[in-house]
Amino acid sequence: MKTLKTQVAIIGAGPSGLLLGQLLHNAGIDTVILERQTPDYVLGRIRAGVLEQGMVDLLRQAGVGQRMDAEGLPHDGFELVLNDRRVHIDLKGLTGGKNVMVYGQTEVTRDLMAAREAAGARTLYLASDAQPHDMQTEHPFVTFEHEGQTWRLDCDYIAGCDGFHGVARQSIPAEKLKVFERVYPFGWLGVLADTPPVHEELVYARHDRGFALCSMRSKTRTRYYLQVPAEENVADWPDERFWGELKNRLPADLADALITGPSIEKSIAPLRSFVVEPMQHGRMFLVGDAAHIVPPTGAKGLNLAASDVSTLFNILLKVYRDGRVDLLERYSAICLRRVWKAERFSWWMTSMLHRFDDDAFNQRISEAELEYFLDSEAGRKTIAENYVGLPYEAIE
Amino acid sequence: MKTLKTQVAIIGAGPSGLLLGQLLHNAGIDTVILERQTPDYVLGRIRAGVLEQGMVDLLRQAGVGQRMDAEGLPHDGFELVLNDRRVHIDLKGLTGGKNVMVYGQTEVTRDLMAAREAAGARTLYLASDAQPHDMQTEHPFVTFEHEGQTWRLDCDYIAGCDGFHGVARQSIPAEKLKVFERVYPFGWLGVLADTPPVHEELVYARHDRGFALCSMRSKTRTRYYLQVPAEENVADWPDERFWGELKNRLPADLADALITGPSIEKSIAPLRSFVVEPMQHGRMFLVGDAAHIVPPTGAKGLNLAASDVSTLFNILLKVYRDGRVDLLERYSAICLRRVWKAERFSWWMTSMLHRFDDDAFNQRISEAELEYFLDSEAGRKTIAENYVGLPYEAIE
Repeated sequence: MKTLKTQVAIIGAGPSGLLLGQLLHNAGIDTVILERQTPDYVLGRIRAGVLEQGMVDLLRQAGVGQRMDAEGLPHDGFELVLNDRRVHIDLKGLTGGKNVMVYGQTEVTRDLMAAREAAGARTLYLASDAQPHDMQTEHPFVTFEHEGQTWRLDCDYIAGCDGFHGVARQSIPAEKLKVFERVYPFGWLGVLADTPPVHEELVYARHDRGFALCSMRSKTRTRYYLQVPAEENVADWPDERFWGELKNRLPADLADALITGPSIEKSIAPLRSFVVEPMQHGRMFLVGDAAHIVPPTGAKGLNLAASDVSTLFNILLKVYRDGRVDLLERYSAICLRRVWKAERFSWWMTSMLHRFDDDAFNQRISEAELEYFLDSEAGRKTIAENYVGLPYEAIE
Repeated sequence: MKTLKTQVAIIGAGPSGLLLGQLLHNAGIDTVILERQTPDYVLGRIRAGVLEQGMVDLLRQAGVGQRMDAEGLPHDGFELVLNDRRVHIDLKGLTGGKNVMVYGQTEVTRDLMAAREAAGARTLYLASDAQPHDMQTEHPFVTFEHEGQTWRLDCDYIAGCDGFHGVARQSIPAEKLKVFERVYPFGWLGVLADTPPVHEELVYARHDRGFALCSMRSKTRTRYYLQVPAEENVADWPDERFWGELKNRLPADLADALITGPSIEKSIAPLRSFVVEPMQHGRMFLVGDAAHIVPPTGAKGLNLAASDVSTLFNILLKVYRDGRVDLLERYSAICLRRVWKAERFSWWMTSMLHRFDDDAFNQRISEAELEYFLDSEAGRKTIAENYVGLPYEAIE
């Protein structure tokens, strides 16, 4: 068995693993990233596109903010639509100056990959069968297959950044984890198209026919979504049907302004809320989707991964620089306080905006709740401050 | 059959019927109130004790605010307790100067009865078998039995102020009403005692053992509540057990400060959310509990009845003074907008503060929701502005 050695072994070269790697590398802490797939495969995943202020700041801190600042679209607000009523959520005004950045996850990943390559830090792609070992000792290691060989990566700590289906969480004994889960009875049918956005801001629409979201990746690339039954098949949704149904769910002026075009990607994603507690096991720490999933309403998934990365980075920094090993055991509790608030907001936005085949009382309550929150400045402020992202907790 | 004639026939001499009667009488509009019970029976019902600013203003407008202003306790805030964490909700600070008045429903009713008697307006107690007729014509009337005789009360309009179990709603054909309902799997065990309040403000406590509320009627009379299973029996709760369990659910300093004493009333109330739509049928208008019930968490029941009274009074005033009969058909829609927001808040407070034997995900979401709303100033403001009461809609 061939061996490698590093300080922090990172499993997964998605945006969380790459961002953690970049922050650690810049701080002089050595990392090796193991990734099961190829770089192109990683870049091919079409995911989130709305970055909270905290993640934007973290990307800048990691030195990978240049292209985002040049090409990303700062959004100072978004629209909430309740059938034909349109309400502007003035993020900047309601939060005392905060906003969000529209910049696709694919672009974030590309920038992080380039920075890591430029830094000469090690990423092993097509590293299969990664398996963490001895996490509860002071000498954990990860074994994996790479180019026909079996390898052993010795390290001080392991970061599990390998997503919901990854090995990191699954390598923790089941009896050590408490699972919290909610599966929603619908999915999101998403279409990516090279068309100009129907509106300069994102539009979240609650409609009697179901939820719709008008999002974008740039001024020439749009990402639109429709709530569909969980068992729906993409093949049943030719472009024409998609655009027609989207128009049905938008107020007339937006439906009239919608420019359609051929889809360049079309897929259905299930909606799920999921959290495991704790987010650590000995010297292995779970980061982002490996520990928690949110439904996409509210755009919290990638941003929540970023706040985990920030927490883990700041703890490891104090561990290596100041010997603060006492902080390690606090990782999970610190993350979970923010995770549960973001889970709460994502669940709430999902509950408010989707059509549920619920009892009549619940439907009225949900309408009254959304109306109250839109009518009240304090209500709109709760939406805005969650949407731009609750503050990161200081590590002290 | 003996006959009587009035402009507005009011069924029910609880606080809604009496307040509506007083406002109409002061405006020179003649009313007759029919009440099934005796005055003492009506006064014997132990109910709510927290009046919103809007109801306080309405009582003053009706000329019955003197004793309330002298003896009532203005409360500028209340406490929310999450296990051992105490958070002050600064009603006055968060709402720009609004507050609530602690003054028992029994006292409100007593003041209204005295004012009606002084005004010489007609209330018929022990009027049984009241039955509205011809509500959809221009000449509705109510028949009833009184002192061994059958009577007919001719009128222009009928106000159904006779509560959840009253005849008013039940006299509307079932197919004309849509019912929305939620029955909660627990009740409130309430104790009235002549002891000084444990804290100068109300204390709402969420505890792993269940909800508790420390309320009061005056500086020497307290009203405490415990969440108990719906099927619980009062006989199983001798005073000693009640006080012991209340202490279990309060933070240590409050538990230590609690002064106990013999209960002078003890009862279990079920918790229910209930709304019928519409709140009118021809020339009969449903007011308060006749149309909607809220769980008592948040103290909205009596206050919501008062806002219905205000709406009906202001419509009838414009009808009689300005011939604005077009307003009549808007009564239900105007009331329901505010009713549903109050139903929403009562449901939310109930959901946040009680123990539900719910799935693990829901429990964490509910903890995170309460923590977020207590941590965020905007969140606390949404609680405060609902607690002091959302504004009444102007009738124009």
